[in-house]
Amino acid sequence: MRTSKIGMAVIGAGRVGPNLVRNAMTTSALDLKYLCDRDFSRARKVLGEYSTVVPTADLSQVLADPAVEAVAVATPAATHYTVVMAALEAGKHVLVENPLAASYRTGAELVATAADRGLALMLDHTSCYTPAVTHLRRLVQSGALGDLQFVDSVRSNLGLVQPDIDVLWDLAAHDLSILDSILPLGVYPIAVSAQGSDPIHAGRACVAHLSVQLSNGAMAHAHVNWLSPTEVRTTTLGGSLRAVVWDDLDLSQRLAVYDRGVERSEVDVLDPDTERAARISYRKGDMVAPAVPEGEALRDVMTEFVAAINQRRSPMTDGHAGLRLLAMLEAATESLASNGAFMPVEADLDDPANHSGIAVLVPVGTVR
Amino acid sequence: MRTSKIGMAVIGAGRVGPNLVRNAMTTSALDLKYLCDRDFSRARKVLGEYSTVVPTADLSQVLADPAVEAVAVATPAATHYTVVMAALEAGKHVLVENPLAASYRTGAELVATAADRGLALMLDHTSCYTPAVTHLRRLVQSGALGDLQFVDSVRSNLGLVQPDIDVLWDLAAHDLSILDSILPLGVYPIAVSAQGSDPIHAGRACVAHLSVQLSNGAMAHAHVNWLSPTEVRTTTLGGSLRAVVWDDLDLSQRLAVYDRGVERSEVDVLDPDTERAARISYRKGDMVAPAVPEGEALRDVMTEFVAAINQRRSPMTDGHAGLRLLAMLEAATESLASNGAFMPVEADLDDPANHSGIAVLVPVGTVR
Amino acid sequence: MRTSKIGMAVIGAGRVGPNLVRNAMTTSALDLKYLCDRDFSRARKVLGEYSTVVPTADLSQVLADPAVEAVAVATPAATHYTVVMAALEAGKHVLVENPLAASYRTGAELVATAADRGLALMLDHTSCYTPAVTHLRRLVQSGALGDLQFVDSVRSNLGLVQPDIDVLWDLAAHDLSILDSILPLGVYPIAVSAQGSDPIHAGRACVAHLSVQLSNGAMAHAHVNWLSPTEVRTTTLGGSLRAVVWDDLDLSQRLAVYDRGVERSEVDVLDPDTERAARISYRKGDMVAPAVPEGEALRDVMTEFVAAINQRRSPMTDGHAGLRLLAMLEAATESLASNGAFMPVEADLDDPANHSGIAVLVPVGTVR
Amino acid sequence: MRTSKIGMAVIGAGRVGPNLVRNAMTTSALDLKYLCDRDFSRARKVLGEYSTVVPTADLSQVLADPAVEAVAVATPAATHYTVVMAALEAGKHVLVENPLAASYRTGAELVATAADRGLALMLDHTSCYTPAVTHLRRLVQSGALGDLQFVDSVRSNLGLVQPDIDVLWDLAAHDLSILDSILPLGVYPIAVSAQGSDPIHAGRACVAHLSVQLSNGAMAHAHVNWLSPTEVRTTTLGGSLRAVVWDDLDLSQRLAVYDRGVERSEVDVLDPDTERAARISYRKGDMVAPAVPEGEALRDVMTEFVAAINQRRSPMTDGHAGLRLLAMLEAATESLASNGAFMPVEADLDDPANHSGIAVLVPVGTVR
Repeated sequence: MRTSKIGMAVIGAGRVGPNLVRNAMTTSALDLKYLCDRDFSRARKVLGEYSTVVPTADLSQVLADPAVEAVAVATPAATHYTVVMAALEAGKHVLVENPLAASYRTGAELVATAADRGLALMLDHTSCYTPAVTHLRRLVQSGALGDLQFVDSVRSNLGLVQPDIDVLWDLAAHDLSILDSILPLGVYPIAVSAQGSDPIHAGRACVAHLSVQLSNGAMAHAHVNWLSPTEVRTTTLGGSLRAVVWDDLDLSQRLAVYDRGVERSEVDVLDPDTERAARISYRKGDMVAPAVPEGEALRDVMTEFVAAINQRRSPMTDGHAGLRLLAMLEAATESLASNGAFMPVEADLDDPANHSGIAVLVPVGTVR
Repeated sequence: MRTSKIGMAVIGAGRVGPNLVRNAMTTSALDLKYLCDRDFSRARKVLGEYSTVVPTADLSQVLADPAVEAVAVATPAATHYTVVMAALEAGKHVLVENPLAASYRTGAELVATAADRGLALMLDHTSCYTPAVTHLRRLVQSGALGDLQFVDSVRSNLGLVQPDIDVLWDLAAHDLSILDSILPLGVYPIAVSAQGSDPIHAGRACVAHLSVQLSNGAMAHAHVNWLSPTEVRTTTLGGSLRAVVWDDLDLSQRLAVYDRGVERSEVDVLDPDTERAARISYRKGDMVAPAVPEGEALRDVMTEFVAAINQRRSPMTDGHAGLRLLAMLEAATESLASNGAFMPVEADLDDPANHSGIAVLVPVGTVR
Repeated sequence: MRTSKIGMAVIGAGRVGPNLVRNAMTTSALDLKYLCDRDFSRARKVLGEYSTVVPTADLSQVLADPAVEAVAVATPAATHYTVVMAALEAGKHVLVENPLAASYRTGAELVATAADRGLALMLDHTSCYTPAVTHLRRLVQSGALGDLQFVDSVRSNLGLVQPDIDVLWDLAAHDLSILDSILPLGVYPIAVSAQGSDPIHAGRACVAHLSVQLSNGAMAHAHVNWLSPTEVRTTTLGGSLRAVVWDDLDLSQRLAVYDRGVERSEVDVLDPDTERAARISYRKGDMVAPAVPEGEALRDVMTEFVAAINQRRSPMTDGHAGLRLLAMLEAATESLASNGAFMPVEADLDDPANHSGIAVLVPVGTVR
Repeated sequence: MRTSKIGMAVIGAGRVGPNLVRNAMTTSALDLKYLCDRDFSRARKVLGEYSTVVPTADLSQVLADPAVEAVAVATPAATHYTVVMAALEAGKHVLVENPLAASYRTGAELVATAADRGLALMLDHTSCYTPAVTHLRRLVQSGALGDLQFVDSVRSNLGLVQPDIDVLWDLAAHDLSILDSILPLGVYPIAVSAQGSDPIHAGRACVAHLSVQLSNGAMAHAHVNWLSPTEVRTTTLGGSLRAVVWDDLDLSQRLAVYDRGVERSEVDVLDPDTERAARISYRKGDMVAPAVPEGEALRDVMTEFVAAINQRRSPMTDGHAGLRLLAMLEAATESLASNGAFMPVEADLDDPANHSGIAVLVPVGTVR
């Protein structure tokens, strides 16, 4: 394994860029060389007056510099295809903000190009690297929850109405990438329904409800809302053995694992006293709030990016994860246009290699 | 106005019966005479050993007693039509638990019979009489919220899987009756979509999502869930001027009225620094948690029932409110069977008299 | 053991009386005969119009009735000595609201009289019978918490400023009776300090802080406050192995048991990097919220009263528990008058039989 | 007013140093030149690999550099006197972490030296610059709360047991500096009582209760605890007109202003029904959670430091604020050694210029 640092550039100094810069700077295996933005003064301002990192507006110069082996792309979504393709063609490993590209089709081109050239192509699905999601994934995939019965997410905020994408592409993308990352092997999305409304006449859905039909019969639902007076970020996973509530804003208790559940038993007795069916059994046990470490997930994104490059393997959230997400978002957009009808998710999701990011790590080939 | 007490009987000693008994006993204008249940021992047990109220299993005796002027019906839903019709035909005023009847059609017969005979027919939509809903109604109908932008309810619990009805008829019925009771004049439900799942194979939907398209373009959504590890009962109303969150389980702060909102302004400027559209204006002001009195809503149900009888007027949640609820629930059931397609709400909801319980009080005619 | 019911009377129809009536009526081993109050109309009003219990203003008639074997006393505190003594002299078992009497001295007379006559004398320390306190007691006395390091209680509210007692006798009495009921064997109060203030010039302390020095070196503290804008009822118990937070107003999670703690280790190393002493070890593990049943504690008070009578044994919160509480409250009052100086708790608390209500159950002697 | 930047050095790269560095770097009026620490490698590590700031272990070199006009001192408390005095004697403006010095006496020497030389001497009482405390100060000093009735703070955590100071100097120092900063003009601390315990045998108080007698008769109390399983940071201020609860860990609602209170009215009537004194009136109105901006307080500390230097005036938390805090902490230490007896606060607190940091801004004299 190499011991020298990986030369890096961050492209895009907008909303996410400064975070990429900060985390790249504190990742010792990386040597951040450039922050590139079409607007030079914005790049300079992000770096501040005490930095040795070079601000630049010249992307081709960055891509031409052999000292730069990897780039992190945080430009507007519409430019992802062009920037990422240019970087791959220049032989750079790429970490890209979500979404991978504007469409499944163009995204697939990027994945193919990266594979051809043996380059790491990683999606910055930051949420998937939080300690909470790591814990959720372990709970689901270890069988501790039992059979998955439902998933319910709420992500709302008096948020920024985006100029180019609707609330599904902005917010539900997080829920879908998390869902993709924690589903047990063999369970995958089959169809998607989306309903939305635009009560402020912004020109796109500002409030939306997304239902994902899973292959095991369970339903995953996400409510996303730009107009909510309060910030909510919760996900509940119900299982036959346990259920877990993740409240990402409850810093003192982000995860609560309940030894509670409802199950159908064999014998059916109608309780005469309560008029309730006794065919159902209820379990109401203790709740455990596991001690989950705090930590900046973007740090772990950087670490995984470095590891994928050094070990010549696929990162956890690789290009295929990006494609699976695009497939679900495109189905959601179609459904939205069809008054909420369920639309099939057309990606190759029945291929085991595709539907669980960590189950199978596909080597990305030879890195220079 | 009469000054003598109204002789009363409670029919049904199951889940709700004891509450009706207790509240009837503390309503001074009522004189509770009987608690009637097919199972005599259950009626006796509910009354306990210190009560002067008479337990009985003989409904016809109760209905034949001229001292009984009014009955409260809390029998299983499937029997409502028969019991309520018998009571009306015996000339009794009726307070009935939700739902009014098993179908819109049979419910309409009850409404017609009550109207013909000049009898009060009232639905026990208890939630509509809570101080919180009264406050919400005033906020909406006074215009304090501005234009209604969205309604979002969550009602979940490790609840009792009902033997005869699905989670929509059990739980969403509350959200729909509340919605019916607080909508501003001129705004009414147009179509309903429902998606559900039954991951425990109970034979009916245990988790469901209900969307109600409102006539002003806004969407009301309810998530109801019998399998949730935690109990949640929240409703958020978003408006152009204010938004309000009602968390019914937060005893110290049930209502929170936010001076927050998002609105579309006239001029469209794309902020170059943030890449965000500046056509949208955001308001993030204070939150006010109004001092809402605590009180048992069923007490106020009784009081309204007495007032409707004595003043010979329609109660707030009259038979028409019961019909409007049935219309929405029937549309939800149809949608559930159609994979979530929107179904029109077929009731005469464009009749102003029908779509706002308190806007127009229709006299019930001459009471004996 | 007897099988007939125990004839009972409730004396006092004020704040607590109605609860005693309600719970006596639902305790099948009790046969409630009278509700007695100096103000006959108040007793009648509490019973309502449907009760077969007899209201009366004549205490001597009640005490003369041989069908009454036991009384529950809920009259104003100043009258406890007289009413309880009269009941004991009439041969009745007595359940009395806190405090047992106005002073330790007169309380001791009541205890002696009950012992002489072989009658049950029980304090209604309701809090000690809640499922939460029962759980806390088990945690402490089983050693699960390890060595008790501190106890911290807050009991505040925009509460009723009492006309005759200060905030310590009103509110801290609850914390002290709970403390008395959960301390491990061999740990007992040694001295008490109290500081108070009366910023509204009510004539008595409305805000107070109470410190109890325990025999193991730990400190128990209670902050009680009639002027607080919010209601708080929390108790934290810190132990060397675990710590537990009891928030009585958090209905979904009253108890939280933390696998967390701080301990002094043997070797002292000053961490050069953090400038912190490494002689201290920290443990930050999971939190468990045990599934504690909900239930009305006063029900269990009645059950314990019945059991003590029938089994001719001391109840858990017997007269000695009442005396131990009076000893602490009297020391607090003295300290308050001495600007917060610690005052010794003068009761016979080093007698094992006295300082843990449940450790030793002293038979109350022969019941008629 | 000068327009050039102020040359600055941070001294101490321990717990607080990195925050001072980060905030100095983002304050455009400052030009950070050095980070100085006895341990050179620690200084270098804090700066990282991309910084143009110079790490050094040579304090005298820093103080000799004429380009350095101001220093921020974050060395261990025991060294504050020496380092600050050296900086002042070298003609540097000083921002120093709390406490100013190890004793009131040596702190007073520093204040005198700064005054003599016309240099700004500012305490980094960061809490006093948070938007929440700024709001609290305005509420108190504008009269919106009415007469101050009580102050109650809790600051607990499974915190770091400090090697050199007890929990009062570590945690209560924050509460006392906040109290000092928000008290209305004319209200000042008169005496202090402190009780503590050390259940883990750390050699110093780990749990403590501090009472501050205020000149208007009210009591301020702080409970500080290093052994608590949960982190709590709340302060409640009760007033005759309103009360406010500040929960610093409730990010969605840090401040809650209650229109609630208890007041003594003129006429005394004993309510016969409730047995409660009617001489007291209760007000239970709405609660308002003001929209308080979020922001890093240390930024505003830097801004105030710059403004004080440029405008040649006292900063809000000047050396006198540091002395007032030392006076209270020394009284607390004495009380702790006297079993909690109240000790007078001996500072010149009746001088209006001293007891309210913002009321009177004393010019610091001529700056070079």
